[in-house]
Amino acid sequence: MIATSTNKNIKEPRITLVGAGPGDADLITLKSVKALQTADVVLYDALVNDELLELAPAHATKVYVGKRSGDHSYSQDAVNKLMIDYAINYGHVVRLKGGDPFVFGRGFEELDYAASYNIPAEVIPGISSSIGVPGMQHIPVTHRGLSESFWVVTGTTSSHQISPDLYQAAKTNATVVVLMGIHKLAEITKIFKSEGKSKLPVAVIQSGSTKDEKVAVGVVDTIVEIVEEKKITSPALIIFGEVVSLHPQFAPIKEFYDIIAQE
Amino acid sequence: MIATSTNKNIKEPRITLVGAGPGDADLITLKSVKALQTADVVLYDALVNDELLELAPAHATKVYVGKRSGDHSYSQDAVNKLMIDYAINYGHVVRLKGGDPFVFGRGFEELDYAASYNIPAEVIPGISSSIGVPGMQHIPVTHRGLSESFWVVTGTTSSHQISPDLYQAAKTNATVVVLMGIHKLAEITKIFKSEGKSKLPVAVIQSGSTKDEKVAVGVVDTIVEIVEEKKITSPALIIFGEVVSLHPQFAPIKEFYDIIAQE
Repeated sequence: MIATSTNKNIKEPRITLVGAGPGDADLITLKSVKALQTADVVLYDALVNDELLELAPAHATKVYVGKRSGDHSYSQDAVNKLMIDYAINYGHVVRLKGGDPFVFGRGFEELDYAASYNIPAEVIPGISSSIGVPGMQHIPVTHRGLSESFWVVTGTTSSHQISPDLYQAAKTNATVVVLMGIHKLAEITKIFKSEGKSKLPVAVIQSGSTKDEKVAVGVVDTIVEIVEEKKITSPALIIFGEVVSLHPQFAPIKEFYDIIAQE
Repeated sequence: MIATSTNKNIKEPRITLVGAGPGDADLITLKSVKALQTADVVLYDALVNDELLELAPAHATKVYVGKRSGDHSYSQDAVNKLMIDYAINYGHVVRLKGGDPFVFGRGFEELDYAASYNIPAEVIPGISSSIGVPGMQHIPVTHRGLSESFWVVTGTTSSHQISPDLYQAAKTNATVVVLMGIHKLAEITKIFKSEGKSKLPVAVIQSGSTKDEKVAVGVVDTIVEIVEEKKITSPALIIFGEVVSLHPQFAPIKEFYDIIAQE
Protein backbone atom coordinates (compact mmCIF):
# COMPACT_ATOMS: atom_id res chain seq x y z
CA MET A 1 0.00 0.00 0.00
CA ILE A 2 2.86 2.33 0.80
CA ALA A 3 4.45 1.52 -2.58
CA THR A 4 1.24 2.49 -4.39
CA SER A 5 1.10 5.73 -2.50
CA THR A 6 4.72 6.48 -3.42
CA ASN A 7 4.02 5.70 -7.07
CA LYS A 8 1.15 8.12 -7.02
CA ASN A 9 3.34 10.80 -5.57
CA ILE A 10 6.01 10.55 -8.26
CA LYS A 11 3.58 10.82 -11.20
CA GLU A 12 4.84 13.43 -13.65
CA PRO A 13 2.46 16.39 -13.87
CA ARG A 14 1.11 16.96 -17.37
CA ILE A 15 -1.86 18.65 -18.94
CA THR A 16 -3.88 17.80 -22.04
CA LEU A 17 -6.20 20.43 -23.45
CA VAL A 18 -8.98 18.49 -25.16
CA GLY A 19 -11.68 19.75 -27.50
CA ALA A 20 -14.86 17.83 -26.66
CA GLY A 21 -16.74 18.88 -29.81
CA PRO A 22 -20.16 20.54 -30.10
CA GLY A 23 -22.27 18.28 -27.86
CA ASP A 24 -22.84 14.78 -29.25
CA ALA A 25 -20.48 12.58 -27.20
CA ASP A 26 -19.57 10.61 -30.33
CA LEU A 27 -18.08 13.73 -31.90
CA ILE A 28 -14.94 13.46 -29.75
CA THR A 29 -11.76 12.17 -31.41
CA LEU A 30 -10.09 8.82 -30.71
CA LYS A 31 -7.01 10.73 -29.55
CA SER A 32 -9.09 12.54 -26.94
CA VAL A 33 -10.68 9.28 -25.80
CA LYS A 34 -7.18 7.90 -25.19
CA ALA A 35 -6.23 11.03 -23.26
CA LEU A 36 -9.33 10.70 -21.07
CA GLN A 37 -8.57 7.03 -20.41
CA THR A 38 -5.26 8.02 -18.80
CA ALA A 39 -6.61 11.01 -16.89
CA ASP A 40 -6.11 11.38 -13.15
CA VAL A 41 -8.22 14.51 -13.11
CA VAL A 42 -10.77 15.91 -15.58
CA LEU A 43 -11.66 19.60 -15.43
CA TYR A 44 -14.71 20.15 -17.62
CA ASP A 45 -16.80 23.01 -18.93
CA ALA A 46 -20.51 23.74 -19.12
CA LEU A 47 -21.09 22.67 -22.72
CA VAL A 48 -19.28 19.35 -22.40
CA ASN A 49 -21.38 16.19 -22.68
CA ASP A 50 -21.41 14.38 -19.30
CA GLU A 51 -21.13 10.99 -21.02
CA LEU A 52 -17.53 11.80 -21.85
CA LEU A 53 -16.61 11.76 -18.16
CA GLU A 54 -17.34 8.02 -18.14
CA LEU A 55 -14.36 7.53 -20.44
CA ALA A 56 -12.02 8.56 -17.61
CA PRO A 57 -10.90 5.87 -15.13
CA ALA A 58 -13.05 5.33 -12.04
CA HIS A 59 -10.31 6.73 -9.79
CA ALA A 60 -10.11 10.00 -11.73
CA THR A 61 -11.35 13.15 -10.02
CA LYS A 62 -13.93 15.01 -12.14
CA VAL A 63 -14.39 18.70 -11.46
CA TYR A 64 -16.93 20.97 -13.13
CA VAL A 65 -15.37 24.38 -13.75
CA GLY A 66 -17.98 25.71 -16.15
CA LYS A 67 -18.88 29.31 -16.43
CA ARG A 68 -21.85 30.36 -18.50
CA SER A 69 -22.85 33.96 -19.15
CA GLY A 70 -24.04 35.45 -15.88
CA ASP A 71 -22.87 32.51 -13.80
CA HIS A 72 -19.23 33.05 -12.99
CA SER A 73 -18.70 30.12 -10.67
CA TYR A 74 -15.02 29.87 -11.60
CA SER A 75 -12.92 32.70 -12.94
CA GLN A 76 -10.35 31.89 -15.63
CA ASP A 77 -7.70 32.56 -13.02
CA ALA A 78 -9.23 30.03 -10.64
CA VAL A 79 -9.41 27.40 -13.40
CA ASN A 80 -5.73 27.99 -14.26
CA LYS A 81 -4.66 27.56 -10.64
CA LEU A 82 -6.83 24.49 -10.10
CA MET A 83 -5.33 22.90 -13.21
CA ILE A 84 -1.78 23.38 -11.93
CA ASP A 85 -2.58 22.21 -8.40
CA TYR A 86 -4.18 19.04 -9.70
CA ALA A 87 -1.34 18.33 -12.14
CA ILE A 88 1.29 18.67 -9.41
CA ASN A 89 -0.65 16.57 -6.91
CA TYR A 90 -2.31 13.96 -9.13
CA GLY A 91 -0.47 13.75 -12.47
CA HIS A 92 -2.37 13.87 -15.75
CA VAL A 93 -4.99 16.59 -15.93
CA VAL A 94 -7.36 16.54 -18.90
CA ARG A 95 -8.85 19.96 -19.46
CA LEU A 96 -12.05 19.15 -21.35
CA LYS A 97 -13.46 22.13 -23.23
CA GLY A 98 -16.51 22.46 -25.51
CA GLY A 99 -15.84 22.62 -29.26
CA ASP A 100 -12.18 23.31 -30.01
CA PRO A 101 -9.94 24.69 -27.22
CA PHE A 102 -8.72 27.59 -29.36
CA VAL A 103 -11.98 28.84 -30.88
CA PHE A 104 -12.90 31.47 -28.28
CA GLY A 105 -12.09 28.89 -25.62
CA ARG A 106 -9.35 30.83 -23.81
CA GLY A 107 -7.32 27.67 -24.26
CA PHE A 108 -4.07 29.48 -24.86
CA GLU A 109 -4.30 31.23 -21.49
CA GLU A 110 -4.37 27.81 -19.85
CA LEU A 111 -1.49 26.57 -22.00
CA ASP A 112 0.52 29.65 -21.14
CA TYR A 113 -0.16 29.21 -17.44
CA ALA A 114 1.00 25.57 -17.61
CA ALA A 115 4.19 26.71 -19.39
CA SER A 116 4.90 29.23 -16.63
CA TYR A 117 5.06 26.25 -14.24
CA ASN A 118 7.10 24.17 -16.71
CA ILE A 119 4.33 21.62 -16.87
CA PRO A 120 4.22 19.96 -20.30
CA ALA A 121 0.94 20.47 -22.12
CA GLU A 122 -0.51 18.95 -25.25
CA VAL A 123 -3.42 20.19 -27.36
CA ILE A 124 -5.93 17.86 -28.99
CA PRO A 125 -8.27 19.74 -31.30
CA GLY A 126 -12.02 19.24 -31.22
CA ILE A 127 -14.82 19.61 -33.74
CA SER A 128 -15.58 23.32 -33.66
CA SER A 129 -19.29 24.02 -33.70
CA SER A 130 -18.53 26.84 -36.17
CA ILE A 131 -17.95 24.31 -38.97
CA GLY A 132 -19.48 21.09 -37.66
CA VAL A 133 -22.89 22.31 -36.53
CA PRO A 134 -23.85 23.96 -39.85
CA GLY A 135 -22.32 20.92 -41.59
CA MET A 136 -24.53 18.41 -39.83
CA GLN A 137 -27.48 20.57 -40.94
CA HIS A 138 -26.16 20.20 -44.50
CA ILE A 139 -25.05 23.83 -44.63
CA PRO A 140 -21.51 23.88 -46.02
CA VAL A 141 -19.36 26.80 -44.84
CA THR A 142 -17.83 26.85 -48.33
CA HIS A 143 -19.37 25.84 -51.66
CA ARG A 144 -18.25 26.50 -55.24
CA GLY A 145 -20.06 29.44 -56.73
CA LEU A 146 -21.46 30.55 -53.37
CA SER A 147 -18.57 31.00 -50.92
CA GLU A 148 -14.80 30.78 -51.22
CA SER A 149 -14.15 31.44 -47.52
CA PHE A 150 -15.66 31.58 -44.06
CA TRP A 151 -15.10 33.97 -41.19
CA VAL A 152 -15.76 32.97 -37.59
CA VAL A 153 -16.44 35.80 -35.16
CA THR A 154 -17.54 35.98 -31.54
CA GLY A 155 -20.74 37.86 -30.71
CA THR A 156 -19.56 38.47 -27.15
CA THR A 157 -16.12 39.99 -26.71
CA SER A 158 -14.35 40.37 -23.38
CA SER A 159 -15.69 43.94 -23.22
CA HIS A 160 -19.29 42.74 -23.87
CA GLN A 161 -19.36 44.76 -27.10
CA ILE A 162 -19.92 43.47 -30.61
CA SER A 163 -16.49 42.85 -32.10
CA PRO A 164 -15.31 45.43 -34.66
CA ASP A 165 -14.43 42.37 -36.76
CA LEU A 166 -18.14 41.69 -37.22
CA TYR A 167 -18.63 45.12 -38.83
CA GLN A 168 -15.83 44.24 -41.25
CA ALA A 169 -17.19 40.74 -41.85
CA ALA A 170 -20.62 42.06 -42.83
CA LYS A 171 -19.00 43.92 -45.75
CA THR A 172 -17.42 40.82 -47.31
CA ASN A 173 -18.37 37.79 -49.41
CA ALA A 174 -17.28 35.37 -46.70
CA THR A 175 -19.72 33.05 -45.01
CA VAL A 176 -19.92 34.64 -41.54
CA VAL A 177 -20.37 32.37 -38.53
CA VAL A 178 -21.11 34.14 -35.24
CA LEU A 179 -20.61 32.19 -32.02
CA MET A 180 -22.13 33.35 -28.72
CA GLY A 181 -24.11 36.06 -30.51
CA ILE A 182 -27.71 34.92 -30.06
CA HIS A 183 -28.42 37.52 -27.33
CA LYS A 184 -27.34 40.26 -29.72
CA LEU A 185 -29.11 38.88 -32.80
CA ALA A 186 -31.20 42.02 -33.46
CA GLU A 187 -28.16 44.25 -33.16
CA ILE A 188 -26.08 41.96 -35.39
CA THR A 189 -28.72 41.80 -38.13
CA LYS A 190 -28.76 45.63 -38.15
CA ILE A 191 -25.10 45.58 -39.13
CA PHE A 192 -25.88 43.40 -42.15
CA LYS A 193 -28.91 45.56 -43.04
CA SER A 194 -26.75 48.66 -43.04
CA GLU A 195 -24.59 46.90 -45.66
CA GLY A 196 -27.67 46.41 -47.85
CA LYS A 197 -27.90 42.70 -47.04
CA SER A 198 -31.52 42.49 -45.84
CA LYS A 199 -32.19 39.47 -48.06
CA LEU A 200 -29.02 37.56 -47.20
CA PRO A 201 -29.88 34.02 -46.03
CA VAL A 202 -29.30 33.36 -42.31
CA ALA A 203 -29.63 30.30 -40.10
CA VAL A 204 -29.59 30.07 -36.32
CA ILE A 205 -28.84 26.69 -34.78
CA GLN A 206 -29.31 26.02 -31.07
CA SER A 207 -27.65 23.10 -29.24
CA GLY A 208 -26.29 21.66 -32.47
CA SER A 209 -25.69 17.89 -32.57
CA THR A 210 -27.70 17.29 -29.36
CA LYS A 211 -31.30 16.15 -28.75
CA ASP A 212 -32.21 19.78 -28.04
CA GLU A 213 -31.13 20.96 -31.49
CA LYS A 214 -33.37 23.64 -33.02
CA VAL A 215 -32.96 25.35 -36.36
CA ALA A 216 -34.30 28.63 -37.73
CA VAL A 217 -33.77 29.59 -41.36
CA GLY A 218 -34.64 32.95 -42.87
CA VAL A 219 -33.08 36.11 -44.21
CA VAL A 220 -31.50 39.04 -42.37
CA ASP A 221 -34.86 40.87 -42.36
CA THR A 222 -36.88 37.99 -40.89
CA ILE A 223 -34.54 35.91 -38.72
CA VAL A 224 -35.17 37.74 -35.41
CA GLU A 225 -38.90 37.03 -35.64
CA ILE A 226 -38.39 33.38 -36.64
CA VAL A 227 -35.95 32.83 -33.77
CA GLU A 228 -38.48 34.30 -31.33
CA GLU A 229 -41.29 32.13 -32.71
CA LYS A 230 -39.17 28.99 -32.39
CA LYS A 231 -38.04 30.04 -28.89
CA ILE A 232 -34.42 29.53 -29.81
CA THR A 233 -31.97 30.46 -27.10
CA SER A 234 -28.36 30.07 -25.99
CA PRO A 235 -26.18 28.16 -26.82
CA ALA A 236 -26.70 28.95 -30.48
CA LEU A 237 -24.67 30.01 -33.48
CA ILE A 238 -25.64 32.25 -36.36
CA ILE A 239 -24.57 31.66 -39.94
CA PHE A 240 -24.87 34.41 -42.56
CA GLY A 241 -24.30 33.67 -46.23
CA GLU A 242 -25.58 32.40 -49.55
CA VAL A 243 -24.63 28.86 -48.44
CA VAL A 244 -27.64 28.94 -46.09
CA SER A 245 -29.86 28.94 -49.20
CA LEU A 246 -28.81 25.29 -49.68
CA HIS A 247 -30.75 24.26 -46.54
CA PRO A 248 -34.06 22.48 -47.31
CA GLN A 249 -35.99 24.98 -45.14
CA PHE A 250 -34.82 27.78 -47.41
CA ALA A 251 -36.68 26.49 -50.49
CA PRO A 252 -40.11 27.99 -49.57
CA ILE A 253 -38.43 31.29 -48.61
CA LYS A 254 -36.73 31.47 -52.00
CA GLU A 255 -40.04 30.67 -53.71
CA PHE A 256 -41.77 33.47 -51.80
CA TYR A 257 -39.16 36.05 -52.80
CA ASP A 258 -39.22 34.83 -56.41
CA ILE A 259 -43.01 35.42 -56.55
CA ILE A 260 -42.63 38.90 -55.00
CA ALA A 261 -39.95 39.70 -57.59
CA GLN A 262 -42.27 38.73 -60.45
CA GLU A 263 -45.15 40.91 -59.28
CA MET B 1 -25.58 -18.86 -49.62
CA ILE B 2 -28.47 -17.74 -51.80
CA ALA B 3 -30.10 -16.14 -48.76
CA THR B 4 -26.97 -14.10 -48.06
CA SER B 5 -26.86 -12.95 -51.63
CA THR B 6 -30.52 -11.87 -51.47
CA ASN B 7 -29.88 -10.03 -48.21
CA LYS B 8 -27.04 -8.22 -49.84
CA ASN B 9 -29.24 -7.19 -52.73
CA ILE B 10 -31.94 -5.63 -50.57
CA LYS B 11 -29.57 -3.46 -48.52
CA GLU B 12 -30.83 0.10 -48.42
CA PRO B 13 -28.49 2.47 -50.21
CA ARG B 14 -27.14 5.23 -48.00
CA ILE B 15 -24.18 7.56 -47.94
CA THR B 16 -22.16 8.98 -45.06
CA LEU B 17 -19.85 11.90 -45.75
CA VAL B 18 -17.07 11.59 -43.19
CA GLY B 19 -14.37 14.10 -42.31
CA ALA B 20 -11.19 12.12 -41.63
CA GLY B 21 -9.31 14.99 -40.01
CA PRO B 22 -5.91 16.44 -40.88
CA GLY B 23 -3.79 13.27 -41.04
CA ASP B 24 -3.21 11.60 -37.67
CA ALA B 25 -5.56 8.58 -37.74
CA ASP B 26 -6.48 9.20 -34.09
CA LEU B 27 -7.97 12.56 -35.01
CA ILE B 28 -11.10 10.92 -36.42
CA THR B 29 -14.27 11.06 -34.32
CA LEU B 30 -15.95 8.10 -32.61
CA LYS B 31 -19.02 8.72 -34.75
CA SER B 32 -16.95 8.34 -37.90
CA VAL B 33 -15.35 5.16 -36.57
CA LYS B 34 -18.85 3.73 -36.10
CA ALA B 35 -19.81 4.76 -39.64
CA LEU B 36 -16.70 3.07 -41.05
CA GLN B 37 -17.45 -0.11 -39.09
CA THR B 38 -20.76 -0.46 -40.95
CA ALA B 39 -19.43 0.49 -44.38
CA ASP B 40 -19.91 -1.73 -47.40
CA VAL B 41 -17.81 0.61 -49.53
CA VAL B 42 -15.27 3.29 -48.62
CA LEU B 43 -14.37 5.94 -51.19
CA TYR B 44 -11.34 7.81 -49.91
CA ASP B 45 -9.24 10.80 -50.86
CA ALA B 46 -5.53 11.50 -51.19
CA LEU B 47 -4.97 13.10 -47.80
CA VAL B 48 -6.78 10.42 -45.83
CA ASN B 49 -4.66 8.25 -43.51
CA ASP B 50 -4.62 4.65 -44.82
CA GLU B 51 -4.90 3.26 -41.29
CA LEU B 52 -8.50 4.43 -41.21
CA LEU B 53 -9.41 1.92 -43.91
CA GLU B 54 -8.68 -0.87 -41.45
CA LEU B 55 -11.68 0.29 -39.40
CA ALA B 56 -14.00 -0.84 -42.19
CA PRO B 57 -15.12 -4.49 -42.25
CA ALA B 58 -12.96 -6.96 -44.21
CA HIS B 59 -15.71 -7.41 -46.80
CA ALA B 60 -15.91 -3.69 -47.55
CA THR B 61 -14.66 -2.45 -50.92
CA LYS B 62 -12.09 0.34 -50.57
CA VAL B 63 -11.64 2.63 -53.55
CA TYR B 64 -9.10 5.43 -53.84
CA VAL B 65 -10.67 8.38 -55.63
CA GLY B 66 -8.07 10.98 -54.72
CA LYS B 67 -7.20 13.84 -56.94
CA ARG B 68 -4.19 15.96 -56.09
CA SER B 69 -3.16 19.07 -58.03
CA GLY B 70 -1.97 17.94 -61.45
CA ASP B 71 -3.17 14.37 -61.02
CA HIS B 72 -6.82 14.24 -61.98
CA SER B 73 -7.36 10.52 -61.76
CA TYR B 74 -11.03 11.02 -60.92
CA SER B 75 -13.14 14.04 -61.79
CA GLN B 76 -15.70 15.23 -59.24
CA ASP B 77 -18.35 13.99 -61.63
CA ALA B 78 -16.81 10.51 -61.72
CA VAL B 79 -16.64 10.40 -57.91
CA ASN B 80 -20.31 11.40 -57.66
CA LYS B 81 -21.38 8.67 -60.08
CA LEU B 82 -19.21 6.02 -58.43
CA MET B 83 -20.69 6.90 -55.04
CA ILE B 84 -24.27 6.41 -56.31
CA ASP B 85 -23.45 3.18 -58.18
CA TYR B 86 -21.85 1.68 -55.11
CA ALA B 87 -24.68 2.78 -52.81
CA ILE B 88 -27.32 1.22 -55.07
CA ASN B 89 -25.37 -2.02 -55.51
CA TYR B 90 -23.73 -2.48 -52.13
CA GLY B 91 -25.55 -0.41 -49.49
CA HIS B 92 -23.66 1.86 -47.13
CA VAL B 93 -21.04 4.03 -48.82
CA VAL B 94 -18.68 5.98 -46.56
CA ARG B 95 -17.19 8.88 -48.43
CA LEU B 96 -14.01 9.56 -46.47
CA LYS B 97 -12.60 13.02 -47.05
CA GLY B 98 -9.56 14.80 -45.58
CA GLY B 99 -10.21 17.42 -42.90
CA ASP B 100 -13.88 18.44 -42.80
CA PRO B 101 -16.12 17.60 -45.78
CA PHE B 102 -17.35 21.20 -46.13
CA VAL B 103 -14.10 23.14 -45.83
CA PHE B 104 -13.17 23.36 -49.52
CA GLY B 105 -13.97 19.67 -49.76
CA ARG B 106 -16.70 19.89 -52.42
CA GLY B 107 -18.74 17.83 -49.98
CA PHE B 108 -21.99 19.58 -50.75
CA GLU B 109 -21.76 18.65 -54.42
CA GLU B 110 -21.69 15.00 -53.37
CA LEU B 111 -24.56 15.50 -50.93
CA ASP B 112 -26.57 17.22 -53.63
CA TYR B 113 -25.90 14.43 -56.09
CA ALA B 114 -27.04 11.85 -53.55
CA ALA B 115 -30.23 13.86 -52.96
CA SER B 116 -30.96 13.89 -56.71
CA TYR B 117 -31.12 10.07 -56.51
CA ASN B 118 -33.15 10.17 -53.27
CA ILE B 119 -30.37 8.38 -51.46
CA PRO B 120 -30.26 9.43 -47.79
CA ALA B 121 -26.99 11.03 -46.79
CA GLU B 122 -25.54 11.99 -43.44
CA VAL B 123 -22.63 14.32 -42.69
CA ILE B 124 -20.12 13.66 -39.91
CA PRO B 125 -17.80 16.62 -39.45
CA GLY B 126 -14.04 16.20 -39.16
CA ILE B 127 -11.25 18.16 -37.53
CA SER B 128 -10.49 20.87 -40.07
CA SER B 129 -6.76 21.42 -40.52
CA SER B 130 -7.53 25.17 -40.55
CA ILE B 131 -8.11 25.15 -36.79
CA GLY B 132 -6.59 21.87 -35.61
CA VAL B 133 -3.18 22.04 -37.25
CA PRO B 134 -2.22 25.48 -35.89
CA GLY B 135 -3.75 24.38 -32.57
CA MET B 136 -1.52 21.34 -32.20
CA GLN B 137 1.41 23.69 -32.83
CA HIS B 138 0.09 25.79 -29.91
CA ILE B 139 -1.01 28.58 -32.23
CA PRO B 140 -4.57 29.53 -31.23
CA VAL B 141 -6.72 30.93 -34.06
CA THR B 142 -8.25 33.27 -31.50
CA HIS B 143 -6.71 34.75 -28.35
CA ARG B 144 -7.85 37.62 -26.11
CA GLY B 145 -6.03 40.82 -26.96
CA LEU B 146 -4.63 39.42 -30.22
CA SER B 147 -7.51 38.12 -32.33
CA GLU B 148 -11.29 38.15 -31.97
CA SER B 149 -11.93 36.17 -35.15
CA PHE B 150 -10.42 33.97 -37.83
CA TRP B 151 -10.99 33.84 -41.56
CA VAL B 152 -10.32 30.69 -43.57
CA VAL B 153 -9.64 31.20 -47.28
CA THR B 154 -8.54 28.91 -50.11
CA GLY B 155 -5.34 29.74 -51.99
CA THR B 156 -6.51 27.83 -55.04
CA THR B 157 -9.96 28.68 -56.36
CA SER B 158 -11.74 26.75 -59.11
CA SER B 159 -10.40 29.30 -61.61
CA HIS B 160 -6.80 28.82 -60.30
CA GLN B 161 -6.73 32.48 -59.25
CA ILE B 162 -6.17 33.86 -55.78
CA SER B 163 -9.59 34.39 -54.25
CA PRO B 164 -10.79 38.02 -54.07
CA ASP B 165 -11.67 37.14 -50.47
CA LEU B 166 -7.95 36.94 -49.66
CA TYR B 167 -7.47 40.57 -50.74
CA GLN B 168 -10.27 41.51 -48.36
CA ALA B 169 -8.91 39.32 -45.58
CA ALA B 170 -5.48 40.96 -45.71
CA LYS B 171 -7.10 44.29 -44.79
CA THR B 172 -8.68 43.02 -41.56
CA ASN B 173 -7.72 42.18 -37.98
CA ALA B 174 -8.81 38.55 -38.38
CA THR B 175 -6.36 35.69 -38.09
CA VAL B 176 -6.17 34.58 -41.74
CA VAL B 177 -5.71 30.88 -42.48
CA VAL B 178 -4.98 30.01 -46.12
CA LEU B 179 -5.46 26.41 -47.20
CA MET B 180 -3.95 25.07 -50.44
CA GLY B 181 -1.97 28.28 -50.91
CA ILE B 182 1.63 27.13 -50.50
CA HIS B 183 2.35 27.25 -54.26
CA LYS B 184 1.24 30.89 -54.31
CA LEU B 185 3.02 31.91 -51.09
CA ALA B 186 5.11 34.69 -52.69
CA GLU B 187 2.07 36.15 -54.40
CA ILE B 188 -0.01 35.93 -51.21
CA THR B 189 2.64 37.64 -49.06
CA LYS B 190 2.67 40.51 -51.61
CA ILE B 191 -1.00 41.12 -50.84
CA PHE B 192 -0.22 41.51 -47.12
CA LYS B 193 2.81 43.72 -47.91
CA SER B 194 0.65 46.03 -49.97
CA GLU B 195 -1.50 46.45 -46.86
CA GLY B 196 1.56 47.55 -44.88
CA LYS B 197 1.80 44.24 -43.02
CA SER B 198 5.43 43.31 -43.79
CA LYS B 199 6.09 42.54 -40.14
CA LEU B 200 2.93 40.54 -39.48
CA PRO B 201 3.79 37.11 -38.00
CA VAL B 202 3.22 34.15 -40.33
CA ALA B 203 3.55 30.39 -39.93
CA VAL B 204 3.51 27.69 -42.59
CA ILE B 205 2.76 24.13 -41.50
CA GLN B 206 3.24 21.17 -43.81
CA SER B 207 1.56 17.77 -43.23
CA GLY B 208 0.21 18.88 -39.88
CA SER B 209 -0.38 16.12 -37.27
CA THR B 210 1.63 13.53 -39.26
CA LYS B 211 5.22 12.28 -38.95
CA ASP B 212 6.15 14.50 -41.92
CA GLU B 213 5.07 17.69 -40.13
CA LYS B 214 7.31 20.71 -40.76
CA VAL B 215 6.88 24.22 -39.42
CA ALA B 216 8.23 27.56 -40.58
CA VAL B 217 7.69 30.70 -38.52
CA GLY B 218 8.55 34.22 -39.64
CA VAL B 219 6.98 37.46 -40.75
CA VAL B 220 5.40 38.42 -44.08
CA ASP B 221 8.78 39.78 -45.30
CA THR B 222 10.79 36.66 -44.48
CA ILE B 223 8.46 33.66 -44.71
CA VAL B 224 9.08 32.82 -48.39
CA GLU B 225 12.82 32.44 -47.76
CA ILE B 226 12.31 30.39 -44.58
CA VAL B 227 9.86 28.06 -46.34
CA GLU B 228 12.41 27.53 -49.16
CA GLU B 229 15.22 26.83 -46.68
CA LYS B 230 13.10 24.29 -44.83
CA LYS B 231 11.97 22.74 -48.14
CA ILE B 232 8.35 22.96 -47.10
CA THR B 233 5.91 21.84 -49.74
CA SER B 234 2.29 20.81 -50.30
CA PRO B 235 0.11 19.92 -48.41
CA ALA B 236 0.62 22.96 -46.21
CA LEU B 237 -1.39 25.75 -44.67
CA ILE B 238 -0.44 29.35 -44.01
CA ILE B 239 -1.52 31.29 -40.95
CA PHE B 240 -1.22 35.08 -40.83
CA GLY B 241 -1.79 36.98 -37.61
CA GLU B 242 -0.51 38.24 -34.29
CA VAL B 243 -1.46 34.87 -32.76
CA VAL B 244 1.56 33.37 -34.55
CA SER B 245 3.78 35.44 -32.25
CA LEU B 246 2.73 33.05 -29.45
CA HIS B 247 4.68 30.19 -31.10
CA PRO B 248 8.00 29.37 -29.34
CA GLN B 249 9.92 29.79 -32.64
CA PHE B 250 8.75 33.39 -32.81
CA ALA B 251 10.60 34.48 -29.65
CA PRO B 252 14.04 34.98 -31.35
CA ILE B 253 12.36 36.80 -34.26
CA LYS B 254 10.67 39.19 -31.86
CA GLU B 255 13.98 39.75 -30.05
CA PHE B 256 15.69 40.55 -33.36
CA TYR B 257 13.07 43.13 -34.33
CA ASP B 258 13.17 44.63 -30.83
CA ILE B 259 16.95 45.16 -31.15
CA ILE B 260 16.55 46.71 -34.62
CA ALA B 261 13.90 49.04 -33.22
CA GLN B 262 16.22 50.21 -30.43
CA GLU B 263 19.09 51.04 -32.81
